[in-house]
Amino acid sequence: MAKIAIVGMGLIGTSLGLALREQTAKGLELVGTDKEYDHAIKAQKMGAIDKATRALRDAVDDAAMVIIATPLLAIREILEAIGPRLRPGCVVTDTGSTKGVVLQWAAEYLPSEVSFVGGHPLTGKETSGPEAAEAALFQDKLYCVIPSPSAQKEAVKSVIDLVSSIGAKPYFVDPVEHDSYIAAVSHLPLLLSVALVGTVSKSPGWGDLAQVASSGFRDISRLASGDPVMGRDICVTNPDNIVHWIDAFIKELYEFRSLIQSDGEELVKAFDNAWEARERWLAGKVSIGARPTPGVEVPSFTDRVGEMFIGHRLMEMQKRMMKDTRRTKEGKDKGTQGS
Amino acid sequence: MAKIAIVGMGLIGTSLGLALREQTAKGLELVGTDKEYDHAIKAQKMGAIDKATRALRDAVDDAAMVIIATPLLAIREILEAIGPRLRPGCVVTDTGSTKGVVLQWAAEYLPSEVSFVGGHPLTGKETSGPEAAEAALFQDKLYCVIPSPSAQKEAVKSVIDLVSSIGAKPYFVDPVEHDSYIAAVSHLPLLLSVALVGTVSKSPGWGDLAQVASSGFRDISRLASGDPVMGRDICVTNPDNIVHWIDAFIKELYEFRSLIQSDGEELVKAFDNAWEARERWLAGKVSIGARPTPGVEVPSFTDRVGEMFIGHRLMEMQKRMMKDTRRTKEGKDKGTQGS
Repeated sequence: MAKIAIVGMGLIGTSLGLALREQTAKGLELVGTDKEYDHAIKAQKMGAIDKATRALRDAVDDAAMVIIATPLLAIREILEAIGPRLRPGCVVTDTGSTKGVVLQWAAEYLPSEVSFVGGHPLTGKETSGPEAAEAALFQDKLYCVIPSPSAQKEAVKSVIDLVSSIGAKPYFVDPVEHDSYIAAVSHLPLLLSVALVGTVSKSPGWGDLAQVASSGFRDISRLASGDPVMGRDICVTNPDNIVHWIDAFIKELYEFRSLIQSDGEELVKAFDNAWEARERWLAGKVSIGARPTPGVEVPSFTDRVGEMFIGHRLMEMQKRMMKDTRRTKEGKDKGTQGS
Repeated sequence: MAKIAIVGMGLIGTSLGLALREQTAKGLELVGTDKEYDHAIKAQKMGAIDKATRALRDAVDDAAMVIIATPLLAIREILEAIGPRLRPGCVVTDTGSTKGVVLQWAAEYLPSEVSFVGGHPLTGKETSGPEAAEAALFQDKLYCVIPSPSAQKEAVKSVIDLVSSIGAKPYFVDPVEHDSYIAAVSHLPLLLSVALVGTVSKSPGWGDLAQVASSGFRDISRLASGDPVMGRDICVTNPDNIVHWIDAFIKELYEFRSLIQSDGEELVKAFDNAWEARERWLAGKVSIGARPTPGVEVPSFTDRVGEMFIGHRLMEMQKRMMKDTRRTKEGKDKGTQGS
């Protein structure tokens, strides 16, 4: 019976267990562990795993696959700890929302007979912990798959099978692009949420503001209810990209600030443009430069390399296009991966 | 039979009609009008009003109450147009999210025998138009009630009755405070949503970003799907407060930017603080300086004056406390109503 170890039984790890349990009833032993042993016990009671273990080594020994679903900085320690124990042919994957550093750690700590295939499910809730988990969390969601350069083809296929079996859609993307894109559409929104709560809650008028804060505030501040350690880890593992997008955002907000003090007509246009962009996005109509999502079939090596090539080319193009804009900004080039 | 005129049959106007219809079956004639006559017809078909009229004058002639539920700038034209036609004792109210200018317009255009009692339901959806309306929109929501200084006690009572009968809770607040508070918890979130969509959708990589944008982006960008004219009107009727909060937000975001590049421990604290502030808000535990919500009873004149006094006093205190902070910022004092 193939053993799968899930390290970290929070929202994502426990949801993965539940989804796997629902989809693949037989031939799979799910073993879970968590620094907070209670979480593993809870996940076991929920039926997300067959067995909860206190020791990381018990979870990963003889495992065919190890799924690391912890905050980002913990991934490093875990890779370092499990590297020497993993059986040859083992596939290691993770669920972190920054991929560049994770691939570096995998190259550093995992032996060559073990394949690392990074993963990032594009889903989430602001709630955390096993009690927030649900089997349907990944249903119809994209799931980024980012193999390390040395990953075996079979290992990539295993991760694609995993992704498909929980109802998600595998999406191949180059790690550098991934970290830049996710900084824009996930990490920046997180910081806006947190900074909004910071701005108003530090105001001496917060007691009064809080009374009249309603659904708009609730929604825009939602991500501030996420795990603070996860937030910190995101920031410190993807700082250049995040700073790049913070700067782009502040520039945009300043343009609104100017229009508010000067030009009602231009303001309507700006609101209109945002309205239209979001409608097109919601309708799935934004496709310029987009690569098709590969299906559940494992792409051939050529396909995969081809995709990565296209990815890099686009990225290079974007970098060139961004260069002029960024030169005009104050401060020196921060070496960000623009786009 | 008392006639109530609803001017503007969009989301709010039509929802008001539906809610009133549900609560008060008899003794009330609801007449609706809209610049887009189709909206009034649609609202009538939905049962939100008894009669749709094309002409504003037909709607307001002989009305006991006029509810203006249009974008903000349109309120001015409507007050100017209906002022000379209203019968003595008529009560005029509105649903705009900025109150200072609306009270000024009311003082300018309404005759002294007519009472203006401003209103602002703290509810909303990003969708607009009569088809998005629902009777339950106001259920258990706060509804700011801001009487003009010259409003008759009976007129205030009428508006409180209106608010209560649609299931909302009346909330008395001084207009200056209202506009400052709402700038922080409603107008600022709106601009963050719109600027987020602007930032990413103007990027050359938007085609790629859009593929990996997920629930976080969807929620934080939600308010960008609101009516662009409403957005513009909010900005031009409350510019000083909004600019004040934009500046406070940028300051806060810059602090995050610095921490990202320097201090992981401080970052966790910042995420923690925001997490806690939002939890306390969600739990209804933020009450420092908050005034109790008056019930459905009309407050005595003394009560009302007392509330306004407390309101002003708090505001003055906040202004003093904000002064030093604002002095350190670049640029001159913009005369904003800080808090």
